[in-house]
Amino acid sequence: MKRYGSVIRLREEQVEKYKALHRNVWPRIQEVISQSHMRNYSIFYKDGWLFSYFEYEGENYQQDMDLMAADPTTQQWWELCKPCQMPLPGHPENQWWSVMEEVYHQD
Amino acid sequence: MKRYGSVIRLREEQVEKYKALHRNVWPRIQEVISQSHMRNYSIFYKDGWLFSYFEYEGENYQQDMDLMAADPTTQQWWELCKPCQMPLPGHPENQWWSVMEEVYHQD
Repeated sequence: MKRYGSVIRLREEQVEKYKALHRNVWPRIQEVISQSHMRNYSIFYKDGWLFSYFEYEGENYQQDMDLMAADPTTQQWWELCKPCQMPLPGHPENQWWSVMEEVYHQD
Repeated sequence: MKRYGSVIRLREEQVEKYKALHRNVWPRIQEVISQSHMRNYSIFYKDGWLFSYFEYEGENYQQDMDLMAADPTTQQWWELCKPCQMPLPGHPENQWWSVMEEVYHQD
Protein backbone atom coordinates (compact mmCIF):
# COMPACT_ATOMS: atom_id res chain seq x y z
CA MET A 1 0.00 0.00 0.00
CA LYS A 2 1.23 3.50 -0.82
CA ARG A 3 -0.17 6.72 0.64
CA TYR A 4 -0.78 9.65 -1.70
CA GLY A 5 -1.10 13.25 -0.56
CA SER A 6 -1.96 15.74 -3.30
CA VAL A 7 -2.65 19.44 -3.45
CA ILE A 8 -4.45 21.87 -5.74
CA ARG A 9 -5.91 25.37 -5.43
CA LEU A 10 -9.66 25.96 -5.27
CA ARG A 11 -11.06 29.22 -6.69
CA GLU A 12 -12.60 31.16 -3.80
CA GLU A 13 -15.76 31.93 -5.79
CA GLN A 14 -16.25 28.22 -6.55
CA VAL A 15 -15.90 26.87 -3.02
CA GLU A 16 -19.62 26.42 -2.41
CA LYS A 17 -20.18 24.81 -5.80
CA TYR A 18 -17.29 22.40 -5.20
CA LYS A 19 -18.54 21.47 -1.74
CA ALA A 20 -22.07 20.93 -3.05
CA LEU A 21 -20.77 18.63 -5.79
CA HIS A 22 -18.92 16.61 -3.17
CA ARG A 23 -21.93 16.26 -0.94
CA ASN A 24 -23.52 14.27 -3.78
CA VAL A 25 -20.78 12.49 -5.63
CA TRP A 26 -22.30 10.35 -8.39
CA PRO A 27 -22.38 6.60 -7.66
CA ARG A 28 -20.39 5.83 -10.82
CA ILE A 29 -17.60 8.16 -9.64
CA GLN A 30 -17.39 6.31 -6.34
CA GLU A 31 -17.36 3.02 -8.22
CA VAL A 32 -14.48 4.11 -10.45
CA ILE A 33 -12.51 5.34 -7.43
CA SER A 34 -12.94 1.94 -5.80
CA GLN A 35 -12.08 0.10 -9.02
CA SER A 36 -8.91 2.20 -9.20
CA HIS A 37 -7.85 0.72 -5.85
CA MET A 38 -8.05 4.01 -3.96
CA ARG A 39 -9.04 3.52 -0.31
CA ASN A 40 -9.68 5.77 2.69
CA TYR A 41 -9.94 8.76 0.38
CA SER A 42 -10.50 12.20 1.90
CA ILE A 43 -10.48 15.74 0.51
CA PHE A 44 -9.92 18.70 2.85
CA TYR A 45 -10.35 22.42 2.24
CA LYS A 46 -8.83 25.55 3.79
CA ASP A 47 -8.31 29.11 2.53
CA GLY A 48 -8.28 28.34 -1.19
CA TRP A 49 -6.37 25.07 -0.88
CA LEU A 50 -7.57 21.51 -1.37
CA PHE A 51 -5.66 18.57 -0.02
CA SER A 52 -6.45 14.97 -0.82
CA TYR A 53 -5.29 11.82 0.94
CA PHE A 54 -5.80 8.22 -0.12
CA GLU A 55 -4.22 4.83 0.18
CA TYR A 56 -3.47 3.07 -3.07
CA GLU A 57 -3.81 -0.68 -2.88
CA GLY A 58 -3.35 -1.65 -6.52
CA GLU A 59 -0.35 -2.97 -8.40
CA ASN A 60 -0.04 -0.42 -11.19
CA TYR A 61 -0.85 3.17 -10.23
CA GLN A 62 -0.44 4.76 -13.66
CA GLN A 63 -2.58 2.09 -15.30
CA ASP A 64 -5.35 2.65 -12.75
CA MET A 65 -5.17 6.42 -13.22
CA ASP A 66 -5.34 5.96 -17.01
CA LEU A 67 -8.42 3.73 -16.66
CA MET A 68 -10.06 6.34 -14.46
CA ALA A 69 -9.28 9.09 -16.97
CA ALA A 70 -10.79 6.98 -19.78
CA ASP A 71 -14.15 6.58 -18.00
CA PRO A 72 -16.79 8.79 -19.71
CA THR A 73 -18.68 9.54 -16.46
CA THR A 74 -15.44 10.54 -14.75
CA GLN A 75 -14.73 12.85 -17.68
CA GLN A 76 -18.16 14.49 -17.20
CA TRP A 77 -17.46 14.85 -13.47
CA TRP A 78 -14.08 16.45 -14.12
CA GLU A 79 -15.74 18.91 -16.52
CA LEU A 80 -17.64 20.19 -13.47
CA CYS A 81 -14.74 20.08 -11.00
CA LYS A 82 -11.83 21.34 -13.08
CA PRO A 83 -13.13 24.90 -13.63
CA CYS A 84 -13.28 25.22 -9.81
CA GLN A 85 -9.62 24.30 -9.43
CA MET A 86 -6.26 25.83 -10.31
CA PRO A 87 -3.35 23.40 -10.63
CA LEU A 88 -0.05 24.45 -9.09
CA PRO A 89 2.47 26.11 -11.42
CA GLY A 90 4.69 23.56 -13.13
CA HIS A 91 2.38 20.58 -12.62
CA PRO A 92 3.07 17.73 -15.04
CA GLU A 93 0.89 17.58 -18.18
CA ASN A 94 -0.83 14.35 -17.07
CA GLN A 95 -1.27 15.38 -13.42
CA TRP A 96 -4.05 17.79 -12.44
CA TRP A 97 -3.45 17.56 -8.69
CA SER A 98 0.21 17.87 -7.59
CA VAL A 99 1.46 14.79 -5.77
CA MET A 100 3.26 15.69 -2.55
CA GLU A 101 6.26 14.05 -0.90
CA GLU A 102 5.63 12.00 2.24
CA VAL A 103 8.04 13.37 4.85
CA TYR A 104 6.71 11.46 7.86
CA HIS A 105 4.51 8.52 8.69
CA GLN A 106 3.57 6.85 11.94
CA ASP A 107 0.96 4.14 12.27
CA MET B 1 -12.87 8.12 14.81
CA LYS B 2 -12.43 11.57 13.30
CA ARG B 3 -10.05 12.41 10.45
CA TYR B 4 -7.97 15.58 10.73
CA GLY B 5 -6.35 17.33 7.79
CA SER B 6 -4.15 20.31 8.71
CA VAL B 7 -2.00 22.74 6.79
CA ILE B 8 0.95 25.04 7.51
CA ARG B 9 3.67 26.73 5.46
CA LEU B 10 7.27 25.50 5.52
CA ARG B 11 10.07 28.04 4.99
CA GLU B 12 11.86 27.14 1.75
CA GLU B 13 15.29 27.51 3.36
CA GLN B 14 14.30 25.11 6.17
CA VAL B 15 12.94 22.27 4.04
CA GLU B 16 16.01 20.06 4.32
CA LYS B 17 16.32 20.63 8.06
CA TYR B 18 12.65 19.79 8.57
CA LYS B 19 12.91 16.62 6.47
CA ALA B 20 16.05 15.53 8.33
CA LEU B 21 14.30 16.01 11.67
CA HIS B 22 11.43 13.85 10.46
CA ARG B 23 13.69 11.06 9.28
CA ASN B 24 14.69 10.65 12.92
CA VAL B 25 11.73 11.58 15.07
CA TRP B 26 12.61 11.02 18.73
CA PRO B 27 11.02 7.92 20.30
CA ARG B 28 9.37 10.01 23.02
CA ILE B 29 7.65 12.13 20.35
CA GLN B 30 6.24 9.02 18.72
CA GLU B 31 5.12 7.79 22.12
CA VAL B 32 3.28 11.03 22.89
CA ILE B 33 1.60 10.98 19.47
CA SER B 34 0.35 7.46 20.17
CA GLN B 35 -0.74 8.37 23.71
CA SER B 36 -2.69 11.27 22.20
CA HIS B 37 -4.73 8.74 20.20
CA MET B 38 -3.45 9.89 16.81
CA ARG B 39 -3.27 7.03 14.31
CA ASN B 40 -2.19 6.64 10.67
CA TYR B 41 -0.37 9.97 10.85
CA SER B 42 1.34 11.30 7.71
CA ILE B 43 2.97 14.60 6.81
CA PHE B 44 3.35 15.57 3.14
CA TYR B 45 5.36 18.39 1.57
CA LYS B 46 5.06 20.34 -1.69
CA ASP B 47 6.26 23.80 -2.78
CA GLY B 48 6.46 25.41 0.66
CA TRP B 49 3.35 23.71 2.02
CA LEU B 50 3.01 20.99 4.62
CA PHE B 51 -0.13 18.95 4.95
CA SER B 52 -0.80 16.50 7.77
CA TYR B 53 -3.37 13.75 7.98
CA PHE B 54 -4.25 11.59 10.97
CA GLU B 55 -7.12 9.68 12.46
CA TYR B 56 -8.07 10.62 16.00
CA GLU B 57 -9.35 7.71 18.03
CA GLY B 58 -9.65 9.31 21.48
CA GLU B 59 -12.63 10.71 23.34
CA ASN B 60 -11.47 14.25 24.08
CA TYR B 61 -9.38 15.88 21.37
CA GLN B 62 -8.62 19.14 23.16
CA GLN B 63 -7.57 17.32 26.31
CA ASP B 64 -5.21 15.09 24.32
CA MET B 65 -3.74 18.09 22.50
CA ASP B 66 -3.25 19.88 25.85
CA LEU B 67 -1.46 16.83 27.29
CA MET B 68 0.80 16.72 24.23
CA ALA B 69 1.59 20.44 24.58
CA ALA B 70 2.46 19.92 28.27
CA ASP B 71 5.06 17.24 27.54
CA PRO B 72 8.60 18.67 28.00
CA THR B 73 10.16 16.57 25.21
CA THR B 74 7.41 17.64 22.81
CA GLN B 75 8.14 21.25 23.74
CA GLN B 76 11.83 20.72 22.89
CA TRP B 77 10.83 19.12 19.58
CA TRP B 78 8.55 22.02 18.72
CA GLU B 79 11.38 24.45 19.45
CA LEU B 80 13.20 22.81 16.54
CA CYS B 81 10.19 22.52 14.21
CA LYS B 82 8.40 25.82 14.76
CA PRO B 83 11.11 28.10 13.35
CA CYS B 84 10.84 26.09 10.10
CA GLN B 85 7.12 26.73 9.81
CA MET B 86 4.85 29.70 9.20
CA PRO B 87 1.27 29.36 10.44
CA LEU B 88 -1.48 30.58 8.14
CA PRO B 89 -2.74 34.13 8.71
CA GLY B 90 -5.54 34.21 11.26
CA HIS B 91 -4.76 30.85 12.85
CA PRO B 92 -6.23 30.52 16.36
CA GLU B 93 -3.90 31.32 19.28
CA ASN B 94 -3.85 27.68 20.48
CA GLN B 95 -3.52 26.14 17.00
CA TRP B 96 -0.16 26.15 15.20
CA TRP B 97 -1.31 24.09 12.22
CA SER B 98 -4.63 25.17 10.65
CA VAL B 99 -7.28 22.48 10.75
CA MET B 100 -8.98 22.00 7.38
CA GLU B 101 -12.57 21.13 6.59
CA GLU B 102 -13.30 17.62 5.32
CA VAL B 103 -15.29 18.09 2.10
CA TYR B 104 -15.29 14.47 0.96
CA HIS B 105 -14.65 11.01 2.28
CA GLN B 106 -14.93 7.57 0.75
CA ASP B 107 -13.78 4.37 2.41
